[in-house]
Amino acid sequence: MMDKIIIFDTTLRDGEQVPGCKLNTKEKVELALDLEHLGVDVIEAGFPISSPGDFASVNEISKSITNATVCALSRAVEKDIQVAGEALKYAKRPRIHTGIGTSDLHIKSKFNSNREDILARAIQCVKWARKYTDNIEFYAEDAGRTDNDYLARVIEGVIKAGATTVNIPDTTGYCLPYQYGEKIAYLINNVSNIDQAVISCHCHNDLGLATANSIAGVISGARQIECTINGLGERAGNTSLEEVVMIIKQHKDLNFYTSIDATQLNPMSRKVSDIMRMPVQPNKAIVGSNAFSHSSGIHQDGFLKNAETYEIINPLEVGADDSKIVLTARSGRSALAHRFKKLGYEFDRNGVDVLYDWFLQVADGKKEVEDADLTLLAEKYKERNFVTT
Amino acid sequence: MMDKIIIFDTTLRDGEQVPGCKLNTKEKVELALDLEHLGVDVIEAGFPISSPGDFASVNEISKSITNATVCALSRAVEKDIQVAGEALKYAKRPRIHTGIGTSDLHIKSKFNSNREDILARAIQCVKWARKYTDNIEFYAEDAGRTDNDYLARVIEGVIKAGATTVNIPDTTGYCLPYQYGEKIAYLINNVSNIDQAVISCHCHNDLGLATANSIAGVISGARQIECTINGLGERAGNTSLEEVVMIIKQHKDLNFYTSIDATQLNPMSRKVSDIMRMPVQPNKAIVGSNAFSHSSGIHQDGFLKNAETYEIINPLEVGADDSKIVLTARSGRSALAHRFKKLGYEFDRNGVDVLYDWFLQVADGKKEVEDADLTLLAEKYKERNFVTT
Repeated sequence: MMDKIIIFDTTLRDGEQVPGCKLNTKEKVELALDLEHLGVDVIEAGFPISSPGDFASVNEISKSITNATVCALSRAVEKDIQVAGEALKYAKRPRIHTGIGTSDLHIKSKFNSNREDILARAIQCVKWARKYTDNIEFYAEDAGRTDNDYLARVIEGVIKAGATTVNIPDTTGYCLPYQYGEKIAYLINNVSNIDQAVISCHCHNDLGLATANSIAGVISGARQIECTINGLGERAGNTSLEEVVMIIKQHKDLNFYTSIDATQLNPMSRKVSDIMRMPVQPNKAIVGSNAFSHSSGIHQDGFLKNAETYEIINPLEVGADDSKIVLTARSGRSALAHRFKKLGYEFDRNGVDVLYDWFLQVADGKKEVEDADLTLLAEKYKERNFVTT
Repeated sequence: MMDKIIIFDTTLRDGEQVPGCKLNTKEKVELALDLEHLGVDVIEAGFPISSPGDFASVNEISKSITNATVCALSRAVEKDIQVAGEALKYAKRPRIHTGIGTSDLHIKSKFNSNREDILARAIQCVKWARKYTDNIEFYAEDAGRTDNDYLARVIEGVIKAGATTVNIPDTTGYCLPYQYGEKIAYLINNVSNIDQAVISCHCHNDLGLATANSIAGVISGARQIECTINGLGERAGNTSLEEVVMIIKQHKDLNFYTSIDATQLNPMSRKVSDIMRMPVQPNKAIVGSNAFSHSSGIHQDGFLKNAETYEIINPLEVGADDSKIVLTARSGRSALAHRFKKLGYEFDRNGVDVLYDWFLQVADGKKEVEDADLTLLAEKYKERNFVTT
């Protein structure tokens, strides 16, 4: 029996709040429908109290989405929660996401408060949310740097008050994977009513560890991952949806599955990148333009013999263009001969040797050797050696 | 006592072989000098047999570098190793990096061979390399998918033959962090002469785990990390130098240090991005343009009270521009008041409330609110309310 990992997408909330990524209501509704089609279980649609425009977006998304849960963010403030509840009025499956900072740094610097008061406010906000829905997610902001014993008390309290999902955010992206995994394990072992809620991982990528931390979290017992398309989000971003989904898919040994249709990952990545005008770097895992390109001679040779020597994912499985063999000065004879064959030329071993030397002279002078360059070389070789192919 | 982690940079080899990233000799020498200045311990300068241009680059880098070790790549082929040795002739501290695929998939598909033959070839290539230097690094390609018991035999054999560093590449980026960590631990526990060599981590980012795997490797006992600036490299790239360096720096609990001058990380990232024409996405950890931007109201409010609530690294520490507060429809009153103050306006609470409503109307219609927009709002408010500030 495999366990399902719930995919909670926050591209439209944690992603959309990024400098330059703001969307209008029409764009947000369009992307929400795409996310539902992709197979996302929960769509965090926005933060309704933040602006009239975002309230309207959450409201329209609530009307448009059929199967996915639509979630709205709020602080542990009665007015926030009320506005979130109103924005979700038409949602078939509404969820209110509310919470408060629980690390001593947040308690002191942000709230000028103390642990007992914050615990009371945490419980109170869940009670307020229950007026609008039974589907309540509580976030313990900066949980990554929160004392485990206090965190366990807060989580126990909010579950008792009615929270059905408890979100353990590594807000600043500080934890190492083993530390984040241990934190989740601690909660499972020390919160008496933990079986009454789903534990959620919400990780940030400030040290490049968001994906690894989320996977460490589900290995320890969490069953929801909060993530975004292309890893968009505050600062260095959130966990990349495409990365966690493909890790779960490729690592059958984890015994998990998600509802995501992987073949939509690349088209979805491009659409979000275009609409939010946020470039994806070529060396981005799964969705970068070079993610399935092979350019070193050693790799190309192995790849042409058996793709699995250098590829653990078939690009077609994630909706990417087929693997690319790019010819550069680091390419080898087998890739060159393979490309010549594609262009309609076949040479004997000696021919390939001569042509490879000519090829390197061209390649040392430019970034990438084009088919037109190769045709010129092939014709020159044929002319000099009276070859007809 | 903290242990040093050796930083082995392969931007000029695994990075440079990427489609579009090829550099000429002048550019490679310039970057090599920058890498030495950054504090890199080992510079992998190229793959000399691959082209005359790359031979010349390794040769010129060898002449130019004073303190760092200069390393050249080769296959387990006598001619490759000879050419690598010649290219390194002028290096003050030369290293030959040679090796062969050890996974059953590589042994069968690439070499049409068997384990015993590959073991013999592994030992042989180290012996060839000893003609040129005592500083020999052996790579067991696709070690990530190699049977641990066989891998241990290969590693024991090459150390006996003279390898001083043993590189355990997760060539296809397949391993989960705990699996890669266990592999390193297995070698430490099962290779009798492992104390005579440094174990190196060479991880790829196909599933977004290169950084986490490298850190898992050093936690288990490896003492060298192979990485590149901006995580450039084949397909989805290699481990990001900036990420592992900052994890080691921020996590004092790991008890490691590196020789890298972190303040050069952002300038170096920009230079490599420019010279290789490979964009860095805004949400890249440490070096992305948004890595230190704050845009949500909750974050901005916390950040203005105490930067550490949402920042684990001071941007100046990594040579980035100072933290940015970007005003969007997701920003809150405190960030708005803070910006008005910077622009020379100070309003009472009521004034900020009125201006915040006006601000949201502007912000809902555009991606980012500029200072010019704010000045217009402030002047309008002053005119209507007879305020003089």
